Amino acid sequence: MITLASDFGSPYPAAMKGVILQRSDARLVDVAHDLPRQDVRAAAFWCRETLPYFPPAVHLVVVDPGVGTDRDALVVRAGEHALVAPDNGVLLPAARRLAERAAADSDGDVPVECFRYDYDDPASATFHGRDVFAPAAAAVHEAGVAELESLDPIDHLESVPPDASTDTVVDCQFPEPAVDSATARGEVLVVDDFGNVITNIPGAFLDDCVGADVAVNGTAATAVTAFDDVDVGDRLVTVGSHGYVECDVNRGRGDDAFGLHPGDDVVLAV
Amino acid sequence: MITLASDFGSPYPAAMKGVILQRSDARLVDVAHDLPRQDVRAAAFWCRETLPYFPPAVHLVVVDPGVGTDRDALVVRAGEHALVAPDNGVLLPAARRLAERAAADSDGDVPVECFRYDYDDPASATFHGRDVFAPAAAAVHEAGVAELESLDPIDHLESVPPDASTDTVVDCQFPEPAVDSATARGEVLVVDDFGNVITNIPGAFLDDCVGADVAVNGTAATAVTAFDDVDVGDRLVTVGSHGYVECDVNRGRGDDAFGLHPGDDVVLAV
Amino acid sequence: MITLASDFGSPYPAAMKGVILQRSDARLVDVAHDLPRQDVRAAAFWCRETLPYFPPAVHLVVVDPGVGTDRDALVVRAGEHALVAPDNGVLLPAARRLAERAAADSDGDVPVECFRYDYDDPASATFHGRDVFAPAAAAVHEAGVAELESLDPIDHLESVPPDASTDTVVDCQFPEPAVDSATARGEVLVVDDFGNVITNIPGAFLDDCVGADVAVNGTAATAVTAFDDVDVGDRLVTVGSHGYVECDVNRGRGDDAFGLHPGDDVVLAV
Repeated sequence: MITLASDFGSPYPAAMKGVILQRSDARLVDVAHDLPRQDVRAAAFWCRETLPYFPPAVHLVVVDPGVGTDRDALVVRAGEHALVAPDNGVLLPAARRLAERAAADSDGDVPVECFRYDYDDPASATFHGRDVFAPAAAAVHEAGVAELESLDPIDHLESVPPDASTDTVVDCQFPEPAVDSATARGEVLVVDDFGNVITNIPGAFLDDCVGADVAVNGTAATAVTAFDDVDVGDRLVTVGSHGYVECDVNRGRGDDAFGLHPGDDVVLAV
Repeated sequence: MITLASDFGSPYPAAMKGVILQRSDARLVDVAHDLPRQDVRAAAFWCRETLPYFPPAVHLVVVDPGVGTDRDALVVRAGEHALVAPDNGVLLPAARRLAERAAADSDGDVPVECFRYDYDDPASATFHGRDVFAPAAAAVHEAGVAELESLDPIDHLESVPPDASTDTVVDCQFPEPAVDSATARGEVLVVDDFGNVITNIPGAFLDDCVGADVAVNGTAATAVTAFDDVDVGDRLVTVGSHGYVECDVNRGRGDDAFGLHPGDDVVLAV
Repeated sequence: MITLASDFGSPYPAAMKGVILQRSDARLVDVAHDLPRQDVRAAAFWCRETLPYFPPAVHLVVVDPGVGTDRDALVVRAGEHALVAPDNGVLLPAARRLAERAAADSDGDVPVECFRYDYDDPASATFHGRDVFAPAAAAVHEAGVAELESLDPIDHLESVPPDASTDTVVDCQFPEPAVDSATARGEVLVVDDFGNVITNIPGAFLDDCVGADVAVNGTAATAVTAFDDVDVGDRLVTVGSHGYVECDVNRGRGDDAFGLHPGDDVVLAV
């Protein structure tokens, strides 16, 4: 199985699928192709929150503002999963989460292992999704995730010695919130398609205040378990499906109601 | 085969797919993930108009404004099809249409049968598509649609005795139009992505007036068979692919030209 | 394998998929369903730029402003690929490209062969994607691309003698640019989802001016290899993945920055 995620919109992902299907009979599953455009941190967030739900797979992730520059091409292995992407940090949060889950399942340690590939003369300087990363994902799938070390140069890809650590690859870390019993200071990580404002504040902050008022940057909202616990159109805060505090509106858009966008500071006060 | 429909946008459906693929090797087919947000009636319409074209399948439908409240989780069987959704009415129009088609094919009666599931402690209160309904769809698929009665508790789902009738589940009925030979009074059911205004007025109302003028809430339009029977930009009414009268513009948007939106009253006069 | 491309948005493609899956076990791959609405030339461009990346397949393409009129239904064969669409020109650029690629691979000549189908009484006059072309694509897939001549009437489709040439079908030609060493006069073919303005001017025009200024209709831009070779927000021209000159902005939208839209004239001066 190969999953595909990108910020390409349409129809560029189709060219990547064609390239893969020329080389592999893998099942293809779209994760998303409308990831926030050229926003590596948002893509890293969504990959971490979706890819670990999949069974063992090769995950192709192309959010690549540096396309055509000399940034590296990366394959990362975490247990039975492999991730293929440009070396810009988009993979590591998902890879760490996958390794943690695999470790929990196996009672052992599961490393995150990084492999680089050289490539020369892709057909274009602007669409490495099609010309570099899709062939790499197909090659990894056909070789098998366990056999990455022995992967021969395939196509224009040339394997180089794997890197046993993640020290030399670009990482993406999410900001840490500052939380005490009455106040949490954090940041908006992403806004989803519903307009739900997803912060980096752990849901546990709301443990003792369900039903109470919580101020979001000074604007009142009600802490609830379900959206429908407040009237339609009312502001709320809740623990979202990622485990973070989200600022929402029942059947409305939280980003509009709170005036919050990705990267904005958020202060919650109970 | 499992089909998926939701109002989730992206990338939440990917988490549902991952959860299913952890438990089932079913073929997955996306119906739509941009159904009108939290609009159960519109989702019920689109499911009725698309799902019956599929071969026997499990259909997962998650439009769920009541997520996290105590609304039930439902599996509905209609012949060789099963539908999985929250108990909010979104399934029944499609299930009835599927049962009618199966009855017509078999010259016998095909019932709509409803099953409930208890579930406890889903991982989130806001994403039951991932935590409740996707596992249920996978379980139904693996057990087989004919074996729903014997479905063992799977995961956090606990089967409860099936309900032989649909009396106790939430239904969704579409409004009935009032039609005589010269006038039809109805309602806009949905507006599609082309801007075509789809009413609940049966197409037969236009049987004798192709080529003639029809007033739509007082605005003139031409009754035609094909969009291209009027000039580009001109208003028309026609029998759409769902069998209802639609108010459109050739290569333009009917909703803008007629000022019509879902739920609006529509009066057609010939 | 059957690929699907349309301007249908959602959820109409699902009905086409259901119809196909009733008749065929083919793998389905979405190319795009948000092709520019009722824009045959843009659809022809995107099909030419995506379909040739696929392994042998049946390609269903429904951009059909003439739906319900007497335009013909077409199947076009190019080597091991077959394309199914209305006879409005949308297929021929892709078919020619596929035939050229097959000829290059085989060192022989590969013709583009056109077949028409009669159809009568489709269930609707407005959704031939579901009622005519999806059944045709399934029939072609099941018969095999090599067996088109012997395809029996299937469903409401009735085969007619194939046409040995493409002379009698509707064609779609892209405009030719006028290029000398200092100036290129062309046209915007399409704008992609990133806002990249894709012209019909061959990329070779930029061969000797990487790093230099190029005027786009009098507006200054820098000729670069990679988007990131200019600062974020700066205008650039580059050779895009289709081999044409594109007018872009690094991490921004070229269409907004240059005020260019499909069909607009473009003059590049070095």
